[in-house]
Amino acid sequence: MTNPADLADQLRSGELRLYELEDHADADTAAEARRRFLAEETGADLDAIGAYSFEAAKASGAAVENMVGGAQVPLGVAGPVAVDGGSATGEYYLPLATTEGALVASVNRGLSAIDDAGGATARVTDSGMTRAPVFRVSGVAEAETVIQWVDKHTDELRETAESTTSHGKLLGVEPYVVGDNVYLRFAYDTKDAMGMNMTTIATREAAELVEAETTAELVALSGNLCNDKKPAAINAVEGRGRTVTADVVLDRDLVEETLNTTPEAMVEGNTRKNLIGSAKAGSFGFNAHAANTVAATFLATGQDEAQVVEGANAITTMNAREDGLYASISLASLEVGTVGGGTKLATQSAALEMLGLGGSGDPPGANADALAEVIAVGALAGEISLIAAFCSRHLASAHEDLGR
Amino acid sequence: MTNPADLADQLRSGELRLYELEDHADADTAAEARRRFLAEETGADLDAIGAYSFEAAKASGAAVENMVGGAQVPLGVAGPVAVDGGSATGEYYLPLATTEGALVASVNRGLSAIDDAGGATARVTDSGMTRAPVFRVSGVAEAETVIQWVDKHTDELRETAESTTSHGKLLGVEPYVVGDNVYLRFAYDTKDAMGMNMTTIATREAAELVEAETTAELVALSGNLCNDKKPAAINAVEGRGRTVTADVVLDRDLVEETLNTTPEAMVEGNTRKNLIGSAKAGSFGFNAHAANTVAATFLATGQDEAQVVEGANAITTMNAREDGLYASISLASLEVGTVGGGTKLATQSAALEMLGLGGSGDPPGANADALAEVIAVGALAGEISLIAAFCSRHLASAHEDLGR
Amino acid sequence: MTNPADLADQLRSGELRLYELEDHADADTAAEARRRFLAEETGADLDAIGAYSFEAAKASGAAVENMVGGAQVPLGVAGPVAVDGGSATGEYYLPLATTEGALVASVNRGLSAIDDAGGATARVTDSGMTRAPVFRVSGVAEAETVIQWVDKHTDELRETAESTTSHGKLLGVEPYVVGDNVYLRFAYDTKDAMGMNMTTIATREAAELVEAETTAELVALSGNLCNDKKPAAINAVEGRGRTVTADVVLDRDLVEETLNTTPEAMVEGNTRKNLIGSAKAGSFGFNAHAANTVAATFLATGQDEAQVVEGANAITTMNAREDGLYASISLASLEVGTVGGGTKLATQSAALEMLGLGGSGDPPGANADALAEVIAVGALAGEISLIAAFCSRHLASAHEDLGR
Amino acid sequence: MTNPADLADQLRSGELRLYELEDHADADTAAEARRRFLAEETGADLDAIGAYSFEAAKASGAAVENMVGGAQVPLGVAGPVAVDGGSATGEYYLPLATTEGALVASVNRGLSAIDDAGGATARVTDSGMTRAPVFRVSGVAEAETVIQWVDKHTDELRETAESTTSHGKLLGVEPYVVGDNVYLRFAYDTKDAMGMNMTTIATREAAELVEAETTAELVALSGNLCNDKKPAAINAVEGRGRTVTADVVLDRDLVEETLNTTPEAMVEGNTRKNLIGSAKAGSFGFNAHAANTVAATFLATGQDEAQVVEGANAITTMNAREDGLYASISLASLEVGTVGGGTKLATQSAALEMLGLGGSGDPPGANADALAEVIAVGALAGEISLIAAFCSRHLASAHEDLGR
Repeated sequence: MTNPADLADQLRSGELRLYELEDHADADTAAEARRRFLAEETGADLDAIGAYSFEAAKASGAAVENMVGGAQVPLGVAGPVAVDGGSATGEYYLPLATTEGALVASVNRGLSAIDDAGGATARVTDSGMTRAPVFRVSGVAEAETVIQWVDKHTDELRETAESTTSHGKLLGVEPYVVGDNVYLRFAYDTKDAMGMNMTTIATREAAELVEAETTAELVALSGNLCNDKKPAAINAVEGRGRTVTADVVLDRDLVEETLNTTPEAMVEGNTRKNLIGSAKAGSFGFNAHAANTVAATFLATGQDEAQVVEGANAITTMNAREDGLYASISLASLEVGTVGGGTKLATQSAALEMLGLGGSGDPPGANADALAEVIAVGALAGEISLIAAFCSRHLASAHEDLGR
Repeated sequence: MTNPADLADQLRSGELRLYELEDHADADTAAEARRRFLAEETGADLDAIGAYSFEAAKASGAAVENMVGGAQVPLGVAGPVAVDGGSATGEYYLPLATTEGALVASVNRGLSAIDDAGGATARVTDSGMTRAPVFRVSGVAEAETVIQWVDKHTDELRETAESTTSHGKLLGVEPYVVGDNVYLRFAYDTKDAMGMNMTTIATREAAELVEAETTAELVALSGNLCNDKKPAAINAVEGRGRTVTADVVLDRDLVEETLNTTPEAMVEGNTRKNLIGSAKAGSFGFNAHAANTVAATFLATGQDEAQVVEGANAITTMNAREDGLYASISLASLEVGTVGGGTKLATQSAALEMLGLGGSGDPPGANADALAEVIAVGALAGEISLIAAFCSRHLASAHEDLGR
Repeated sequence: MTNPADLADQLRSGELRLYELEDHADADTAAEARRRFLAEETGADLDAIGAYSFEAAKASGAAVENMVGGAQVPLGVAGPVAVDGGSATGEYYLPLATTEGALVASVNRGLSAIDDAGGATARVTDSGMTRAPVFRVSGVAEAETVIQWVDKHTDELRETAESTTSHGKLLGVEPYVVGDNVYLRFAYDTKDAMGMNMTTIATREAAELVEAETTAELVALSGNLCNDKKPAAINAVEGRGRTVTADVVLDRDLVEETLNTTPEAMVEGNTRKNLIGSAKAGSFGFNAHAANTVAATFLATGQDEAQVVEGANAITTMNAREDGLYASISLASLEVGTVGGGTKLATQSAALEMLGLGGSGDPPGANADALAEVIAVGALAGEISLIAAFCSRHLASAHEDLGR
Repeated sequence: MTNPADLADQLRSGELRLYELEDHADADTAAEARRRFLAEETGADLDAIGAYSFEAAKASGAAVENMVGGAQVPLGVAGPVAVDGGSATGEYYLPLATTEGALVASVNRGLSAIDDAGGATARVTDSGMTRAPVFRVSGVAEAETVIQWVDKHTDELRETAESTTSHGKLLGVEPYVVGDNVYLRFAYDTKDAMGMNMTTIATREAAELVEAETTAELVALSGNLCNDKKPAAINAVEGRGRTVTADVVLDRDLVEETLNTTPEAMVEGNTRKNLIGSAKAGSFGFNAHAANTVAATFLATGQDEAQVVEGANAITTMNAREDGLYASISLASLEVGTVGGGTKLATQSAALEMLGLGGSGDPPGANADALAEVIAVGALAGEISLIAAFCSRHLASAHEDLGR
């Protein structure tokens, strides 16, 4: 019964459905059966997908269903770079999994410049994972009553929410009313976990209390004011996960000799592209390519790839100072964790170990904070590198010619 | 010299730098040397990262630099589902690489409902990859002269741009003026390629012509009106890559029996969460979790993970009809390709083969169009599944109770 | 010297400049001199502008400089309508100053339907006028120190800010960091005043304390996170001035007989236009024409016409219930006052009297709250009227034909 | 019967309704009757509102219904300023109707600096009034058919649309698909009219053709992709009405001596407030207070006050050049006209005459273009003045201290 060929036959005949295989075989066998079946159905050679090295039993059901195998993405490294963070301290090598040629080289060039300047500073300036259920009420009069109840019973809501978790702490509840809808945005300190699951479970419990004690009826645990995996001003403005800034001052000599441009040229390039261009585009992302670094580090370290969306809510600033170029990136909503989810898988866990940030931090939350800081430094490096690259070609000479 | 241990020693001693290894060894050896070096530096066990099965020589330098190995992500499958698309036709199994438990199951449940309803319809309604260089001019009077020149010389710009590519076709150039900045948004038909590289090279040539023939000076090849990898209204409104819609009508019986809810409850849930909630959040994403499906299919099929950002620009609509539930998702800016970039890697290529969409389509562009349509159907499935899930718990009973 | 003809001569000869006239004549004479001068310079007949009836001495210098006369805008009235508000109670006639034909009629039609339904409910669900100075710091490390200081010294900041005002109360201070910029968003309860001046003065004092006690340097008292008179998500999401909702349930009979359409048709129209259309437009305004009512009531009652911008941040929702149509409008950032600014002028003061809302309320703030509620009801009326109008032409018949 | 006291009695008794008075009396008498009635009902003294000087017969029914009288707003003047525009040429005095003290003085100060610098340059860089009906289709397959029909029959649509107007010209039709909704954004050259009415009538005719020739059913003539009177990215990005830029170079000496600051300080202030602050606020308005000038000139010249909303979509840029400060403002969607609507009223018409821009231009459209250019220069003046003001207090000294 656990022979992959037989299972594939049963899939073909309709005796079994794709998701039922784990009832009859171990995870590796089930995956092999699916590959056999799909290869026959589609004519595709799926051997590469079958050549995974993680433990199928740990992935199947926990990280994926209907497992067929694994996707493999090249992983490179950039650094080392010194980081002076609120939690991150010391030298870091940044793991980046990507299929975009030149990305690792670009980040590496930027990190090298930053490191030559003595490293970057980074701080998590705000933190909180959110979940915002939507409730139906009869109208605004009832909405007012509900939010008054919520205001008065925040302690009770906290107790209820926190009863579901050993780590999470409720930071606050923000109400929003739109007609006969009440949205309650719950924010939590989720320590080293990215925290969506913890937050969802805790909020469900709290939402049920609201339902029990008021006339509001829960429509959905997420009413899209959270806001998860959608480009949304509320995250860009108010933050979600970690709000983190990294910055550095690069000496004028360093900019001129290593990056082949000038602070003034980079400032101009950043202003015309990242600030004014993004303004005209109606964007929440005032940066060159922060999402590239976010996506590649997320993939390497087991973060949720769909949360790259919020990770792109970043503003890059540059200004020329007497001592050189000040450059910063501020990511409003970087949702990262070092425990749970994809962080437990083999390659992802190894990448976190390489950063020295696997598992729970001391104090709890410190590892995820440090990870956010290190990713921010990586994103800053990508910004410096890309802007210097186009400025070295165009602006530097223009600046010389024009005496600007 | 090509011994990994020796190379690692040389890294340690500073004789070699991380990016120089490929000058002295093949890609596998270089990667192993880096792992050895990093393992010693950081104490991490990097064996899992070294257990990749793709061809290092193809990945290193093309997809990644400073290659250390590979990240492995579990890959599952959902479907089959019948798609009646402009290019996609027939039954498809959707490959999804993810670490988010329950995602594949959710998409699978949705696809099953769609398939029971006879499959989904899908269409690419607009298409074009964009690049928007920013030029510096002296002021608006000069800007006017420049855009007049561009308007009059579009044919010449087309010829110049297209001289760099055997496939790409210039669709048009849209000018934007902000003070002393002129942004020219070039849009191309890039056939089966996602097309950023092709578009960048073609636009560089065209931008140089603008520089040569007008007083405008190129500041950056991307002035952020493209807009790549940032949440931006210009993409949500005007599209980038493929603009694609998928829809389906689910019989009332199907909704009630398979999804355990009602069309009316789902419409209400979609309106309160995806429309009104997103409106209040200041979002460009009026959907439940489209980015999940986009991210997982992007990762499986070798797309650019950072472009999940634009992939989240999606609107989900639902309305109740006499015959059941109409559900749709419209993705404004889904940037996909079936040739080039990450699509050439082993597991990614296999996943595209499984879809029957590897390589160039017939006619050119048909495979990428079909991929966009299939991903849209997958995203629609995810929407239906998630909304049905919370409605079955809450709304259905509420509707019965209240007779709504 | 105070003869208008002589003053005009002096303007012409350059002996006097336009803004110097009040040093030499009373306000009426100065305005007449300017009209004479401008009439000669431009050939325009400015008699109509000179036919104002407000007291020039009160307007000149307080509301306007270089006064020439007055602009006159036709003022109509809509209503009466019963409002069950948090502060507004009873019947109201709504004054509307506009040059847009059909607007008053449209609002009147909607108010009539609302009144037939027993009136509208309205509530101010949030309140606070904001000012957000921007400070320059050396980088994120210093930024962290500054916001920690602010967190610890909120009481001191409150005391300092409130020392400048007899009415205003500091509600809180929200810090935002972007690179080497710290923005502190101060929010105040400004009672019956719209409150920009009060808020600016109080914040200046507080900002000077921040400068004195920390290393931050004030760059501007408004750092655009306030955000005043610009379309901004932060206002749409977080509110500014009054956040107010008005709603009503219109009986099915009323919708069918008075508005000549059906609840279902109006829901469909609202969804396709106000929700989905606005979503696709990348809008913060999910309504049909709320700004029309806001602008016309603002002009009539002496509000700041430029704050119509924020007044357009409104979401209109409609759903069909067993008993008819539920309709609501939620204005996120309606900035109104009944004391100060333009409310003191003759016609504006009369319009407020007509509403019974002139001057300070009891308790303080109640009049401005009530005004916000009444304007919201007016805007709701405009929405109902416009949507019913297009639905009666198109959708109602379609619904009958199709049996939808 | 035409005695106001009698009419007021009949209103009180319910024999007549407010909107029926014009059937029984002339406009002045009807307005007086309403004032009497409302004075008794509300206790307000409405004499000031009755002291209008425009012709009631022209206003009542055309600009307002249920006319009670007029609102009066103080009107000041700023300038003169030299404008080198595409259509505007020569010296202009800018009329501003406002109740915001210091606004006229601020604009005047800015215009004075601009004039000292030889005047401002201005250009309308794009133009087109839009209307975007929404149609219901069965799904995306039908949507595709409809937009293909539209693409193929643009000439026919143009002919049909233009048959309703002697002036308007159809510029193009842009289709947008969201699920079972098709939005067609029609853009017109409306010459010297702001053009909403013209555009609506022409689009109605075209929409009926679409309905007749395809399966699409019209839901609403405005589907909110126009987008009228709502803050919307589509206008900020694509423009609506006039897209206009004004700029100027202010000599360093002028900045230092007249504005008491430095170009560098103003650039810094503009960047930290208007660019970075607005970016963080999730704004479409990257300016200090453009809406103030737009609102005050709109009110003075008879524009639609609710369209101040779109008028706030403006980006202010500043950079330091060898010769001083370059400053610009680019308004994306300034909707103005010099014929029709409120421009015909007495004071508004006089204000347009003062600008030399009343009525139709030569060629048609030139007056409205010129008005847009002059308003842009006024807005630029407001930006320069406000930014200089806060920089002179804070930044200039800081710059001296720090040698920046």
